[in-house]
Amino acid sequence: MTHTFRVWAPIAHRMAVDIDGRRLDMSAREDGWWEATVDGAGPGTRYAFSVDGGPARPDPRSSSQPEGVDGWSEIVDHGSFSWRDSGWRGLPLPGSVLYELHVGTFTDPGTFDAVVERLPHLVDLGADAIELLPVAEFAGTRGWGYDSVDLFAPHHRYGGPEGLKRLVDACHEHGLGVIMDVVYNHLGPSGNYLADFGPYFTDRHHTDWGAAVNFDGSDSREVRRFVIDNALMWLRDYHCDGLRIDAVHAIVDQSPIHILEELSTEVEALACDLHRHLFLIAESDLNEPRLVRSRDGGGFGLDAAWADDWHHALHARFTGERNGYYSDFGSLSALAKALRQAWVYDGQWSEYRRRTRGRPPMGLDGSRFVVSLQNHDQIGNRAKGERLGHLIPAARLKVAAALLLAGPFTPMLFQGEEWGATSPFQYFADMDDPDLRRAVRDGRRREFAGFGWNPEHIPDPGDPATFERSKLDWSEPRRPLHAEILKWYRQLIRLRHDLPGMSDPRPERHRVAWDEDAGWVMAQRGQYLVAASLGADTVVLTVPRGTRTVTVSNPTVHLGDGRLVLPPDSVAIMSTAQL
Amino acid sequence: MTHTFRVWAPIAHRMAVDIDGRRLDMSAREDGWWEATVDGAGPGTRYAFSVDGGPARPDPRSSSQPEGVDGWSEIVDHGSFSWRDSGWRGLPLPGSVLYELHVGTFTDPGTFDAVVERLPHLVDLGADAIELLPVAEFAGTRGWGYDSVDLFAPHHRYGGPEGLKRLVDACHEHGLGVIMDVVYNHLGPSGNYLADFGPYFTDRHHTDWGAAVNFDGSDSREVRRFVIDNALMWLRDYHCDGLRIDAVHAIVDQSPIHILEELSTEVEALACDLHRHLFLIAESDLNEPRLVRSRDGGGFGLDAAWADDWHHALHARFTGERNGYYSDFGSLSALAKALRQAWVYDGQWSEYRRRTRGRPPMGLDGSRFVVSLQNHDQIGNRAKGERLGHLIPAARLKVAAALLLAGPFTPMLFQGEEWGATSPFQYFADMDDPDLRRAVRDGRRREFAGFGWNPEHIPDPGDPATFERSKLDWSEPRRPLHAEILKWYRQLIRLRHDLPGMSDPRPERHRVAWDEDAGWVMAQRGQYLVAASLGADTVVLTVPRGTRTVTVSNPTVHLGDGRLVLPPDSVAIMSTAQL
Repeated sequence: MTHTFRVWAPIAHRMAVDIDGRRLDMSAREDGWWEATVDGAGPGTRYAFSVDGGPARPDPRSSSQPEGVDGWSEIVDHGSFSWRDSGWRGLPLPGSVLYELHVGTFTDPGTFDAVVERLPHLVDLGADAIELLPVAEFAGTRGWGYDSVDLFAPHHRYGGPEGLKRLVDACHEHGLGVIMDVVYNHLGPSGNYLADFGPYFTDRHHTDWGAAVNFDGSDSREVRRFVIDNALMWLRDYHCDGLRIDAVHAIVDQSPIHILEELSTEVEALACDLHRHLFLIAESDLNEPRLVRSRDGGGFGLDAAWADDWHHALHARFTGERNGYYSDFGSLSALAKALRQAWVYDGQWSEYRRRTRGRPPMGLDGSRFVVSLQNHDQIGNRAKGERLGHLIPAARLKVAAALLLAGPFTPMLFQGEEWGATSPFQYFADMDDPDLRRAVRDGRRREFAGFGWNPEHIPDPGDPATFERSKLDWSEPRRPLHAEILKWYRQLIRLRHDLPGMSDPRPERHRVAWDEDAGWVMAQRGQYLVAASLGADTVVLTVPRGTRTVTVSNPTVHLGDGRLVLPPDSVAIMSTAQL
Repeated sequence: MTHTFRVWAPIAHRMAVDIDGRRLDMSAREDGWWEATVDGAGPGTRYAFSVDGGPARPDPRSSSQPEGVDGWSEIVDHGSFSWRDSGWRGLPLPGSVLYELHVGTFTDPGTFDAVVERLPHLVDLGADAIELLPVAEFAGTRGWGYDSVDLFAPHHRYGGPEGLKRLVDACHEHGLGVIMDVVYNHLGPSGNYLADFGPYFTDRHHTDWGAAVNFDGSDSREVRRFVIDNALMWLRDYHCDGLRIDAVHAIVDQSPIHILEELSTEVEALACDLHRHLFLIAESDLNEPRLVRSRDGGGFGLDAAWADDWHHALHARFTGERNGYYSDFGSLSALAKALRQAWVYDGQWSEYRRRTRGRPPMGLDGSRFVVSLQNHDQIGNRAKGERLGHLIPAARLKVAAALLLAGPFTPMLFQGEEWGATSPFQYFADMDDPDLRRAVRDGRRREFAGFGWNPEHIPDPGDPATFERSKLDWSEPRRPLHAEILKWYRQLIRLRHDLPGMSDPRPERHRVAWDEDAGWVMAQRGQYLVAASLGADTVVLTVPRGTRTVTVSNPTVHLGDGRLVLPPDSVAIMSTAQL
């Protein structure tokens, strides 16, 4: 058994690999790479690197960190897993219903294997793909994952490389796709040793969460390769079907070819090679069509982008909240625009941002916008991590679900949403450094104090109880009220999948009418009508004669003689097609 | 049981439906449509239409013609088939190996069900999708299918609608996709009653094979709908994965939105609805990138286009033939250009056509070009339907197969090619009209007499023996020489699927060197080298040190010390990557 260690460390004068109590010199190769071939090393062997005689550091491209971010790295052989998904050709993103989940809180054990046991629930629900919050190794035993530092190593507490492979394999066996959330705009502060090896970061740009990644400065070629190889690894070695790229608006790249365009080119080539469908989704608040336009049309060639406007427009109107960025939303006309084209801000002035925002999504298919009623950020970044179901009555929640699922966009649920879970999803992080832990807690308390909260009521991210109370309670979906919500979600997803045209992605097939004062909105989705009442009084709407109901959220909704009677907080899905 | 008959007949003054010996008047509806609801009619019922009191005519949109093109139509319920492919999400075209087959001659019975029995052979070969020559109802009992007239009715002799569904279902069960060849540029001359109903044809344009379809004249809207609905039917009701659209260079459409762009938009929406991957391939000799560029890049948004240049460059160089369109090819430099970018003519003067031809395929992925060593046209349009294997020795055939399969383009085999089948594929057609039959035979004889053929030696398309001798002999693949060719094809396809980068679609990963005089060509495919010797003498080529062979077509090929020794008619596939 022999293994060749390789590492990029262009700023090092000498490099060594620590293994079995020995420190072995590495040889300089071209372009800042170092190499050492070691007898007796192979899968399972622990090792570390030393830069210029410094302390043992994890491999920047470590495949496994069995003892966490500060521990030694472990050699992994990606060829040894027995995949059973050879017939899997990938999942088409258009037409899919996504399901976002956090491995640590989705189940009580908080592992990849524990997720596997819940897959039948997701199949039964009708979800098409799960989207995992970042699983790359981050500091401590609990966290959302956005502060990962070992980007190539699935978190050891979740089950490491083997556990993740078992999960993806099981998903494919259940006909479910897997989307991996990846963070390339910054790395976490704790356990981050990359700067010891090379110019991974730059101070020419900066992000809200940490040093910006050096995508366009001197010696950025290998940094770009680092990121692209990471993306390809999830798709190739872990058989993931797609990636969700975190906060691309915080990726500044002034290179001739933007890193996202380069990535989409490489992923297309890999898809050809693997003969599977692969896709890329960007999280962005820029409302920038270039992200999803084709490369030959001047775009980056990604498959879809998150549309937070859709969420904000619905949330503000449904809850009445107007704080923070919700101040830019709240009207029924904003909701109607979201229901029509996902992006509300397509060039207008944003009072909250004090600048104009967005461009019109001309000609883009609806499936290219990922929309949600709630997600980890919109729940977790609230002071107490309240879900939408904590804020509005169940009847209104059912209206929101219908607007989410009976439409042209790609809908995404957040774990437990489908049964109106009572557990919050709070911000939690397990930081070894007590100063960092205190700084995060106090910063968060200050932030919410600005909105009038009592700082003592803000959960402490570092308290294990904050993590524990964010876990789903799997006895809930069987209880009456929750079972009713679950049934409604199941029915809506089934309708979405079974009724041709319900989710027709072509923008010209969708029209939205509304009445701000009376509080109703009606979306035409091809031959379907989705009418919702959000006001205080029952409304009566005129629909074409021959229209019939497909489903209603409330038995008192009545349709007859071309008149639809909608009590407050109710929704009707109708068809205008002849039987 | 009741059924509503609908037909578009804008030029009719009255319309009737013939059923059970009765002639029932139809009512005029909007936009030239007629309608009649008839009790007692349903799946299996035979019917016909009468225009202005004229004779019984098949429904232009007939789903089934159990008695052929001149017989009555039959009602089909597409919802009644028990599909077993609910988990099938479609096939990605990039990375696929296609296999063109003609249902009538692929097997002795010549039916859809008989194709099913041969699917294990195709799985074993490594093919990913079959491409069926057109199966829509055409006149007579045998024919290539390009003269179909009932575009919505699978040919009754092949097994009709049920038979085709059984075939597609079985393909999906075997992990194989199905591509349907569809002809929208003209319709066949025999059994074509469309002009009795409406302005389906135009004399403002014309094709070599019959009246041009009215895509852009007055009242063309419903004609366009006819074609688009037909395309969607194959994908939706027959679960086909893609369409191969015949001779799009003969589709003239000066509408604001070209019919192919409209079609690709509709197919994308259907794919979202069905939650399956669907794709469109154009046959075109225009070398026009617009076909496959994205719609937001000003293109039609098709997925791939045939690249006949690739065939011609290889065929002319490998056979030495220079007649007809082969006169534009023959050099090793033309072959090298084909191996690099599929299209040889990308703007240059074509002496054969006496005009410039094509545009550069800038930036287009290799997977967007469908290439072949032989196909129904290149074989069948020869005087005697000779395959490439009839024209060159087996050693040279193996070289050609390696150039086909070890490259960036989407390769397509023609039935039996994989074992060097001895059966020809001749032009056959069973025309009821003796005058038409004689005209076709004599026209064909005249055409080939121009190339020096004795007319008496040209097979008569109407002779049943011409059809019979074009059938595959399934005992061949077990015979030694054929088994060796089959083994070579299997190996090449396996390498293509298993070796990352072998078919990398990115144009910048491919380089081609050649020596016209010495007769060798060497293509670099990422880390792979494919070197072929086509001259009279053994050649010695220099390759990077450390290069090793992946496979060779001939045991006398020798690689050592960076020197590759290639005897005439041999090929070596090598890797330059370190082990």
